[in-house]
Amino acid sequence: MSTFGTAFRVTTFGESHCASIGAIIDGCPPGLQLSPADIQVQLNRRRPGQSDLTTPRNEKDAVLLQSGLEHGVTLGTPIGLLIRNEDQRPHDYSETDLYPRPSHADFTYLEKYGVKASSGGGRSSARETAARVAAGAIAERYLKLAHGIEIIAFVSSVGKIHIPVAAVSSSEDDENDDAVEPLSDEFRKLLASISREEVDKHPTRCPHFETAERMKKRIVRAKEALDSIGGTVTCVIRNLPSGLGEPVFDKFEAKLAHAMLSIPATKGFEIGSGFRGAEVPGSKHNDAFVRRADGSLGTETNWSGGVQGGITNREDVYFRVGFKPPATISQAQATAQYDGTPGSLAARGRHDPCVVPRAIPIVEAMASMVVMDLLLIQKSRQAAASLLPPITTLPATMVMPPKV
Amino acid sequence: MSTFGTAFRVTTFGESHCASIGAIIDGCPPGLQLSPADIQVQLNRRRPGQSDLTTPRNEKDAVLLQSGLEHGVTLGTPIGLLIRNEDQRPHDYSETDLYPRPSHADFTYLEKYGVKASSGGGRSSARETAARVAAGAIAERYLKLAHGIEIIAFVSSVGKIHIPVAAVSSSEDDENDDAVEPLSDEFRKLLASISREEVDKHPTRCPHFETAERMKKRIVRAKEALDSIGGTVTCVIRNLPSGLGEPVFDKFEAKLAHAMLSIPATKGFEIGSGFRGAEVPGSKHNDAFVRRADGSLGTETNWSGGVQGGITNREDVYFRVGFKPPATISQAQATAQYDGTPGSLAARGRHDPCVVPRAIPIVEAMASMVVMDLLLIQKSRQAAASLLPPITTLPATMVMPPKV
Amino acid sequence: MSTFGTAFRVTTFGESHCASIGAIIDGCPPGLQLSPADIQVQLNRRRPGQSDLTTPRNEKDAVLLQSGLEHGVTLGTPIGLLIRNEDQRPHDYSETDLYPRPSHADFTYLEKYGVKASSGGGRSSARETAARVAAGAIAERYLKLAHGIEIIAFVSSVGKIHIPVAAVSSSEDDENDDAVEPLSDEFRKLLASISREEVDKHPTRCPHFETAERMKKRIVRAKEALDSIGGTVTCVIRNLPSGLGEPVFDKFEAKLAHAMLSIPATKGFEIGSGFRGAEVPGSKHNDAFVRRADGSLGTETNWSGGVQGGITNREDVYFRVGFKPPATISQAQATAQYDGTPGSLAARGRHDPCVVPRAIPIVEAMASMVVMDLLLIQKSRQAAASLLPPITTLPATMVMPPKV
Amino acid sequence: MSTFGTAFRVTTFGESHCASIGAIIDGCPPGLQLSPADIQVQLNRRRPGQSDLTTPRNEKDAVLLQSGLEHGVTLGTPIGLLIRNEDQRPHDYSETDLYPRPSHADFTYLEKYGVKASSGGGRSSARETAARVAAGAIAERYLKLAHGIEIIAFVSSVGKIHIPVAAVSSSEDDENDDAVEPLSDEFRKLLASISREEVDKHPTRCPHFETAERMKKRIVRAKEALDSIGGTVTCVIRNLPSGLGEPVFDKFEAKLAHAMLSIPATKGFEIGSGFRGAEVPGSKHNDAFVRRADGSLGTETNWSGGVQGGITNREDVYFRVGFKPPATISQAQATAQYDGTPGSLAARGRHDPCVVPRAIPIVEAMASMVVMDLLLIQKSRQAAASLLPPITTLPATMVMPPKV
Repeated sequence: MSTFGTAFRVTTFGESHCASIGAIIDGCPPGLQLSPADIQVQLNRRRPGQSDLTTPRNEKDAVLLQSGLEHGVTLGTPIGLLIRNEDQRPHDYSETDLYPRPSHADFTYLEKYGVKASSGGGRSSARETAARVAAGAIAERYLKLAHGIEIIAFVSSVGKIHIPVAAVSSSEDDENDDAVEPLSDEFRKLLASISREEVDKHPTRCPHFETAERMKKRIVRAKEALDSIGGTVTCVIRNLPSGLGEPVFDKFEAKLAHAMLSIPATKGFEIGSGFRGAEVPGSKHNDAFVRRADGSLGTETNWSGGVQGGITNREDVYFRVGFKPPATISQAQATAQYDGTPGSLAARGRHDPCVVPRAIPIVEAMASMVVMDLLLIQKSRQAAASLLPPITTLPATMVMPPKV
Repeated sequence: MSTFGTAFRVTTFGESHCASIGAIIDGCPPGLQLSPADIQVQLNRRRPGQSDLTTPRNEKDAVLLQSGLEHGVTLGTPIGLLIRNEDQRPHDYSETDLYPRPSHADFTYLEKYGVKASSGGGRSSARETAARVAAGAIAERYLKLAHGIEIIAFVSSVGKIHIPVAAVSSSEDDENDDAVEPLSDEFRKLLASISREEVDKHPTRCPHFETAERMKKRIVRAKEALDSIGGTVTCVIRNLPSGLGEPVFDKFEAKLAHAMLSIPATKGFEIGSGFRGAEVPGSKHNDAFVRRADGSLGTETNWSGGVQGGITNREDVYFRVGFKPPATISQAQATAQYDGTPGSLAARGRHDPCVVPRAIPIVEAMASMVVMDLLLIQKSRQAAASLLPPITTLPATMVMPPKV
Repeated sequence: MSTFGTAFRVTTFGESHCASIGAIIDGCPPGLQLSPADIQVQLNRRRPGQSDLTTPRNEKDAVLLQSGLEHGVTLGTPIGLLIRNEDQRPHDYSETDLYPRPSHADFTYLEKYGVKASSGGGRSSARETAARVAAGAIAERYLKLAHGIEIIAFVSSVGKIHIPVAAVSSSEDDENDDAVEPLSDEFRKLLASISREEVDKHPTRCPHFETAERMKKRIVRAKEALDSIGGTVTCVIRNLPSGLGEPVFDKFEAKLAHAMLSIPATKGFEIGSGFRGAEVPGSKHNDAFVRRADGSLGTETNWSGGVQGGITNREDVYFRVGFKPPATISQAQATAQYDGTPGSLAARGRHDPCVVPRAIPIVEAMASMVVMDLLLIQKSRQAAASLLPPITTLPATMVMPPKV
Repeated sequence: MSTFGTAFRVTTFGESHCASIGAIIDGCPPGLQLSPADIQVQLNRRRPGQSDLTTPRNEKDAVLLQSGLEHGVTLGTPIGLLIRNEDQRPHDYSETDLYPRPSHADFTYLEKYGVKASSGGGRSSARETAARVAAGAIAERYLKLAHGIEIIAFVSSVGKIHIPVAAVSSSEDDENDDAVEPLSDEFRKLLASISREEVDKHPTRCPHFETAERMKKRIVRAKEALDSIGGTVTCVIRNLPSGLGEPVFDKFEAKLAHAMLSIPATKGFEIGSGFRGAEVPGSKHNDAFVRRADGSLGTETNWSGGVQGGITNREDVYFRVGFKPPATISQAQATAQYDGTPGSLAARGRHDPCVVPRAIPIVEAMASMVVMDLLLIQKSRQAAASLLPPITTLPATMVMPPKV
C-alpha cells in the first residue's frame, strides 16, 4: 500500500494531475524543532528545472505543513503536508492515448485497476516522490539533531561512465579470483568525507569532477539524440549507532533494498561489496575486527557495508542503486496499441534524459525513513531492557547492555 | 520483526541450538490439498549433506504440521509447523567465545540484544531458513494449483565463473554504450524452459553443464584451501498474472528485493536488466509492445523483467541475487577479541564452502511468499471492483475490468 | 497510531488549531463513482451548530478531495482529503493554562508527549472525527453500491432516559433469571426498518418521538445548569454478507469494539444481547436456526447480534456505545493546577451539552470502516479459494463454497 | 488475522483437534529471566477440571518452550511455544454433524471457509485461548519485573448475582439523575487491594465470599438443569505509568476493548464508569485533580478508569467484560439442519456451565498484551525525544519531559 515503515510511518497520496500530492508522517518524536525550510531544501534538490540536464517542468514544490507542529516544534502527532500540483496541465485525449507507452506503467495500471488515469501510469509518476522527499527530510532532521547521522548520496555512474573510485562488479570470467583487491582506499575516503555541498557543485551530482564532465556530455548526447540514459547512485550513511535492523525478515539491508526498489526506475540494489563480493573468497571478504582509537571495536575493511547479520555494526553503511534510462523518449518507437494494432508512438511532454541527478534527494529520503524506523524500534527494545533486574544466570561475558 | 507479508503472513521462530524452529503461516486459502511431502521436497533440497559440496551436518529436517489442516485439506486457519533441531550439539564455552567471528553476527547481536546466545549470531544462522522454505512450499503449492505459476531458481555464478547466457553487468567504461546488445536469446529461452529437474541434475544447481563443472572445481578448491567462495542465484517466475504489486512503496520488485536481502549472506539484488540496464539508453531498453498469439499484449524484449511501474505485466519475472562467500572459514584469521585485544581465530564447526547450491530453495521460497501475498491483495481489489455498477462517466477506452 | 484498518486503511492528521485536518484513504476499490456530495452529507450531520442542542462553533467543514479520483471515479489509488479549520481561533494563553482540565486530555497529552499543544489535548479534540466521517462515507458508498449494506445509528439514551424498546442491562439482583425475556419484537422491528431520515426527524436523533422530547428537555436542562449529560448510541448494520470477521484476534465484534472505543468520550460497547446477555441462561440465549423464506439459514432470536464465533451470520449486526457526559462544562470546578496547587477552573469556549446527537455519523463512519476492511479481507480469501481444484478427500457435507 | 500487537506481537495457531496449539511471541525484551513455571501458573488457572464448576476434560496443558531463551534468559528473539492437545479425541461423524449448533460457530466457519473442521467452529474453540494465556504470562512477567505493574481480574457477576461493591449500570428510567452517586469507596478499595490469592480462594473466583457462594449455587443449578449461565469479569491494572495509549485509533481503551471482545463468548466491554457513566451529568462525572502524597497529580474519583483522551494517567485502569452463557448445553434444542430441515439437537461432549471462573487468566493475559504493546511503543517515543536538544521556542510551561 502507500505506507512505509512501522514505528516511523509515512503514508503518501497524489498523482501527477490531481489537486495536490502529500503525506502523513506518523511517529515523529515530539519536541523536534522543525521549519518548512528544513524540508524545502531537499524538495528544491529534487525539483525539476534545476539545470539544463533536467526537465523544464517548473513547479515551486512548496511544502505546506498542515498539522503536528506548533511554534516550530513537533507535537508528536501526525504531520500532514501538501505540495500543490501548480503546473498541472489538463489532459487532452489524443491518438497517443491508444498506446500504452513502452516501459511505462500505462498498461500495468490499466490491468491492475481497470481504470485509466489521465497520467496513464497514475502513481508511477516521479511526481509522487516529492512527498517522500518531504517526509524523509523530517526523519533526517531528527537523525541529525539526535545522533549526528549523515546521509549523503551521489551519482556514481551515467551509462558506462563510472566514478573511478567506486566499487563496481567485475565481469571478467577469471578463475584467478584470489587476486581480487579489497575496496580501494580512495573509495573509503570518499565515503568518509563526502558532503552534500561537494555533491551539488556539479549539475550531475557526481563529486569526481573529471568524471562528472564526461557524464554531463553523455547526458547531453542522450538529450540531443531524443534519447535517455541510465545511471547509478551511491549513498553512504555515517554515524549510525550499532544494533539497527530486525532479524530475520527486516534486516537493515532488506529494508534498504525495499526502500530503494520502491523508487521509480530502479532495477538493482547492492550493499557493501555487493555483486562484486559474490566473486571473491571468504578469506578476502571477511572484515577482521580491530580496536579503534576510542577503544571500541571496528572493522578493517568494511566489505560488509556496515551490517552483519542484518544489523548495523557502527561502520559506515554504503550501497548502490541502479536506475534504468527514462522510458519517456522523444523519438518515435515502433510498438502496439492496447488492442494489439502495431504502430508508432512519439512521446509528448517534458522529461529528463537521465534521472540520477534528481534521484539523489529521493535516495537520501528513503534511506532516512529506513534508519528512522529501525532506530525507533531498537530504542524501544533498549529502553525496555534497561529496566530489567540484572541477569544472574549467565556468565558476565555473555551479557552487555544493549546500545542505540 | 519475524513476520513477512500482509495477506499471506509467515512468522518464524528458532535459533540453531534450541528445541525446534518453526513457523505459523496465516492467510493460506482454505480448501488447498496439501501433504507434508509437498513441503518436504523443498526442505530436502535445502538440507545440509546433500553432496560433497555442502556441510556434513546431517539433519532430517522433517516438517511436523501442527494445525490448520484436516484430511489433507487446509482449513483456512493458521498452519503451525515445526522442524526439530535433531543434530543440536550443546555449546561448550571455549577461548573462541572471546572472539566475535569476522563478518558474522556475533558482534552485532550482542550490541543489539545485550545477551549472547550459544550460537553467537542467534537468528542469523542459516538454520532459520528451513522454516521459510517450509512456508514458501505452501505458498508455491497454491500458486501452482490455482494459477500454474512456476518459480525456478538456479546458480548463475560461483566466484567469477558465470553462466554464459546470463545477463551480467559490464564494467567496461566505454562511452560507446549505444552498441549494447539486449538480453540474449539463449538467456530468454533458458528462462522460458528451465525446470527444477534440470537444475538438480548437477550438485552445483547450475543448469549449464560445462559451467557447472567449472563451478564445482572452484568450490572444491575453496574447500581444500580452508576457504569459501561467493556466487549468485538467478530466479524466474512464469505464468504470473498481470496486476500484482502495490504502488508506491510495495512495488513487486521492492517486495522481492526485501525478501531476497532478508536471506542470510545476500549482498545484492537486480531485476530484469538490473545494473546492466543502468548503462544503456532508453531507446534500447524500452520494451516495445507486441500482440501475442492469444491476442493479448506482450513485450518484445522484457528488459523490464516482467514489471512496469512496480506491477507485473504477464511477462516472466526474473531477478538475480548476490551471495557473499560464507564467513565461516577453517583457516586462522587475524582479528580482535570483544575487548579489542588482537589475536588469531580459527573457525570451529561445520560449514559450506559456498552457499548458492543450497540457497536455491530459499530463493524460491521467498519469491513464493512475495507472489502469494501480492496475489491475495490484488484478488481482493478485483473481487471488490467486480461488484460495482458499470462506470458511466468515463470513455470506454479508459475502463477495463481488472484482472488477476 | 493514526491508521485504522488493514486492507481498507484510513490514516488521519490534524488538531483543533492547525491549518487543516484530513485523511488518506488507501485501498478503496477502483471504479467507484463518488462525488464530494456523497461525503458532505455525513460531514453536515456531524457539523457543529445544527440545532440549539449543539455547540455554536460554525465551520463549513467542506471536504476537499485531493487525489485518487478522476471524472468522479475512484482510480484505486489513495484518496487524499482535507477539511480546513476555518473557524480556528488563535490561542491566547491565560490563567486557565495552568490547569489541566478535569477529565480532559490536557494532562495525559503533556505526560505522553512532553509538549503542550494550544488545544491542550491535541488530537483528543472531537474536531479530529471530521476526517473519520469523511473516510467512513467513502467506505459506506462502496458498501451500499456493491452490497446494499445499510448502517444506521440512532440515539438510544440520554442520561437515564432510554428508548423503551431498546435492550438495556438489568441491574436487579434476582436469582429468578430464567424468567428473562428475549429481545422485544418492537426492538427487532425498529432495527429492521429504521432509516436515517427517521433518525434525523428530531434534533436529538432519537427515533422514538416521545422519548426524544424527554431527551431534549434533559439536554436543555443540562445546558441551563452549565452542565452536560451522557448518553448512548445504538447502531444496526443490515444486509451484511456472512463470513466477515477474522478469528481469533480480529473477530468482527473485536474490531467494532476497537473502532467504537476509539471515538472520543466513549466508555462502553456491547453487541447483541451485550451485558444483558451475561445475565441469562444458555437455553434462553441460544439462537435456534430456522429456514428462511429464501431457503437460507437464519436465526430466530438474534441475541448474538449477527455474529457467531466472531464471524457474521447474515443476521443484522446491532450494538450499543456508551458516551460519558462532555468534560467541558461552564460551571466552576474545584481542581488542581499542573503543579498541584488547588484552585477553581471555569471552562472557556464552546461546547455541546450532550454529544450523542452529533456522534451518530461518527459511529456510522467507524462501523463502515470495520465492515469495509473485513469485507475486503474475506473477498480475497473467497476469490483465492474459488480457483482451487475441487476437494476430493472430504465428504461432501464438509465442504461448501465460501461466500461473501 | 491471528496476530495481536505491533511492538509486542503474539501470533497463535491451533484448533481443538489438531496436534498442538501454540504461539510465537515476537518483541519480548532481551534479558528477561523467565521459566516455564512463570507461564504454567496461569495455564493452570485456565485449565479445565479445576473444580466441580468446570468441564471434566483433563489436559495437562504443559507449556513447551521452543526458542528465544537460553539459561532461563530471553534472547530478544521470537519465543516459540507449544501446548499439546493431549486429551484429543478423534471425531466420529454422526447425526449431530448435520446440525450447526445454535450460537456456536459451526455455521459461520463453514460460510467463511467453505470447509468444515472436525470441531465445527475451528479456532472458535476456547481451547485456543491457552496459547494466549501463555503469551500473556510472558508479557506480565516483564511488566511486573520492570514496572511493578499488577493485573488482577475477578468474577463480578454470575447471572443476575452481582458483587455488591461493583459499579453496575442502572436501568431506572429516572430524570432525577443528578442524584447519582460516584463509585463507591468499597469498590475503589477492592480495586486497590485485590490479589490473585484472594481471587483464587473461592472456586467461582469472586472475592466477595457471600456473593461467591450464591454464584456457586447458581452455577450448580445451571449444571443440574443441563443449562448454562452468563457472567461478567472485572479487571484492574495497577501501577501503570502515564502516557500509554496512541491517539486516535489506538487509544488505550480501544485496544483493551479489541482485546477483550476477541475472547470467545464476550458480548460487552466497559471501562471506568462505563455505561453507568452515560447516565450522569458532567459535573458529577469529571475527575477533579488533586495533589498526591508524592507531589504528583492524581484524580479524586477516577470515574475515567485511568484513561483520559485514550492515554493512561497513572490512576488504576479498571474495566468490565460481559460473557454470554456457554452455547453448549446438554438439553435438547429445537433448531434446524444445515439444509434447513427442522429438528432437535442435544449437545454431545464436555462443557462448562459458566465460563467466567476460567476466563480470569484469559482476561489478564489479553490485558497484559495490550499494556506491553503500548508500553513498548511509548518507550520508543520517550527514548527518541530524550536525545533532542532542549526546546527554545516554547514557554517553559508548555514543555515537560515525556514519561513512561
